[in-house]
Amino acid sequence: MKKVTVSIITIGDELLIGQTIDTNSAWMAQELNALGIWVHRRVAIGDVKEDILETMAEEAAVSDIVLITGGLGPTADDITKPTLCEYFGGGLVQNPDALKNVMHIFESRGLPVLQRNVDQAMVPEACTPILNDRGTAPGMWFEKDGKIYVSMPGVPHEMKGMMESYVLPRLQEYFETPAVVHQTLLTSGMGESFIAERLMDFEKQLPAHIKLAYLPSYALLKLRLTALGKDKISLAAELSGHFQLLKSILPDITVADQDIVMGEVLGRILQKQGKTVGTAESCTGGYIASSITAVPGSSAYFKGSVVTYANEMKMKLLGVKAATLDTYGAVSEQTVREMATGALQLLETDYVMAVSGIMGPDGGTPDKPTGTVWIAVGSREEIRTTRHHFRYDRDRNIQMTAIYAMNELRKLMNT
Amino acid sequence: MKKVTVSIITIGDELLIGQTIDTNSAWMAQELNALGIWVHRRVAIGDVKEDILETMAEEAAVSDIVLITGGLGPTADDITKPTLCEYFGGGLVQNPDALKNVMHIFESRGLPVLQRNVDQAMVPEACTPILNDRGTAPGMWFEKDGKIYVSMPGVPHEMKGMMESYVLPRLQEYFETPAVVHQTLLTSGMGESFIAERLMDFEKQLPAHIKLAYLPSYALLKLRLTALGKDKISLAAELSGHFQLLKSILPDITVADQDIVMGEVLGRILQKQGKTVGTAESCTGGYIASSITAVPGSSAYFKGSVVTYANEMKMKLLGVKAATLDTYGAVSEQTVREMATGALQLLETDYVMAVSGIMGPDGGTPDKPTGTVWIAVGSREEIRTTRHHFRYDRDRNIQMTAIYAMNELRKLMNT
Repeated sequence: MKKVTVSIITIGDELLIGQTIDTNSAWMAQELNALGIWVHRRVAIGDVKEDILETMAEEAAVSDIVLITGGLGPTADDITKPTLCEYFGGGLVQNPDALKNVMHIFESRGLPVLQRNVDQAMVPEACTPILNDRGTAPGMWFEKDGKIYVSMPGVPHEMKGMMESYVLPRLQEYFETPAVVHQTLLTSGMGESFIAERLMDFEKQLPAHIKLAYLPSYALLKLRLTALGKDKISLAAELSGHFQLLKSILPDITVADQDIVMGEVLGRILQKQGKTVGTAESCTGGYIASSITAVPGSSAYFKGSVVTYANEMKMKLLGVKAATLDTYGAVSEQTVREMATGALQLLETDYVMAVSGIMGPDGGTPDKPTGTVWIAVGSREEIRTTRHHFRYDRDRNIQMTAIYAMNELRKLMNT
Repeated sequence: MKKVTVSIITIGDELLIGQTIDTNSAWMAQELNALGIWVHRRVAIGDVKEDILETMAEEAAVSDIVLITGGLGPTADDITKPTLCEYFGGGLVQNPDALKNVMHIFESRGLPVLQRNVDQAMVPEACTPILNDRGTAPGMWFEKDGKIYVSMPGVPHEMKGMMESYVLPRLQEYFETPAVVHQTLLTSGMGESFIAERLMDFEKQLPAHIKLAYLPSYALLKLRLTALGKDKISLAAELSGHFQLLKSILPDITVADQDIVMGEVLGRILQKQGKTVGTAESCTGGYIASSITAVPGSSAYFKGSVVTYANEMKMKLLGVKAATLDTYGAVSEQTVREMATGALQLLETDYVMAVSGIMGPDGGTPDKPTGTVWIAVGSREEIRTTRHHFRYDRDRNIQMTAIYAMNELRKLMNT
């Protein structure tokens, strides 16, 4: 079976000047992979006619499908659509469905319709228009010399709507694709090179159609097995055997046998144990609570949190003693321990995480340099504390603190 | 003056299967732009020798500089480094400084040094090695046929360290670059097409070397003016005149005259007024508090927050009445109003934001569909409430709620 490949082209100066981080491509790649379609290259270019023409031709030469996002919208249409007309031949025509969609959106919001909105319903006559049920810019499906091209808006939820309702199903009809199965082991606590040593024999015995990838992700390392073949069911069974072997080699560092975020790992354990959790956060400012509540259904085990940035709030809400803050400081084992104890009482949960630290860029001292964090995790029976020193920027120090706190609680809950 | 251009190549299967979102490129583009170097294209490819060779040659044909990230590391070296040797000629040699760095890192962590770690100190003999003071994989600077190539690890903070300490300063010495000045107006409350109508005359009078870009970003729209020229000081003065004119046309929708996030916008107003803020969050689960505390120095105006996910916590911590929850429900004007009042008293702040809503995917009802949110913002003098209905996925509904709540408070503080 021939491998079906896609190139993703994103159009927009904002991607080249770093104003926007491209999250569309990752989502698209995941969805395409699930259908057995492989992303060969991803290219980002500016709103320049020559670059668009050249890149489309280049990518169509190496891939079966060219997916284009961006460059559409009421103030961006001027370049992309005429360029598509030039590439595929023919002019712009008004599409009645797209026009109805534009009119409906503006009328339902009680807004007047401007000429530039009406113009959004103009599409190249060479295309099959794709309805945008989340915005005004229609998508466009083209076929030329045996290759498929699809142009979609860059707004993520508009692009996703079109992919799900139209593009992915139609691609699946169009191509015969191989079966692909992934399985990911989430590990923590051991470096990439040490794991690689332990997996040397395992890697050697893997058949050629199954590959192992090391994917570092903050304090975690993901080990992903990917199998390619003809039949999804037998492939999944084969992969599962290798995955069980992989797990059995690394029981001490396994966090989860699925590619999930740490908030989900915690959520599953809590739900299984029928327990609840809360947080008392200083330096993370609510980030741990928001990581936990980012998971749908978290209200089953998450009751609440307090963010006590000011010392007076640590005392008032959590009952941290003034003497403790005076003697040991806000960033200390004693303080996080009292925060944890206070939060268990205030939030009435089974488990708690409490953190206090210096996230930077300022606030460090010789004794407690920037990046110093104390973490307490525990229950009414036991509270464990750990000291950490992160050496990143503020954002990453906050994220690392959250991951470590959640991982410490995971270890405590699993023992 | 010739425009200096760069192509960014990211190597790694993880980018093509959507496991990793590329945040490196955006950061690199911002830093390069500040030096007057333009990103012409960004390309992501897999760990495949032929693709790497081909893409390097293609990008060197259209750009002066080729920056490569990824494909280095103890388990990834096998493909990228031999490929670089093939492209530039010569073999791999051990670099003493890189070896010293590897040994130092492992010894300071009390870990044994494995052969694959020692191998990380091997570099193509054609390169000038770049010290990695944040990790084990050295960077590599190459020159060939008048073009510059730099290969760096994909780990963001390692790449950033090398860019700042070595690559950016050396590029600046190497090339004579034009001056570039950006200025961004942050707006809220009006659609792109309506703003474009109001700016038609303004856009017409802009000189050719100054460009206006519309950059949507959640509930906000950024209007960015970019000027290109020879002398940075006179260019900044010229741009400033156009920027003042732009501001004067849109006073009603201006949020800030800088490209900052909403947490910073609030922080600046609070600091100027010498006031404090806190939050009482249900559906956002601490996301608003973490947005505010992501800003360095926020402890000057942020005291604390409570996340009251469970109704019992709304009553216990914020004094929301059982009768209110029974009669109107947790997602209601009455509840957020009582949450706001309770939080002002508990957190002893000047201002407060309180939110309650249904973020999805489940939990919606015909009366209160998924995405329904009530927001209360205010002070002891006045509390304002608004109802919203977001139609995105859970993550985005949470982010939109946070942006809207902060924007509502901004409007209240500015009146």
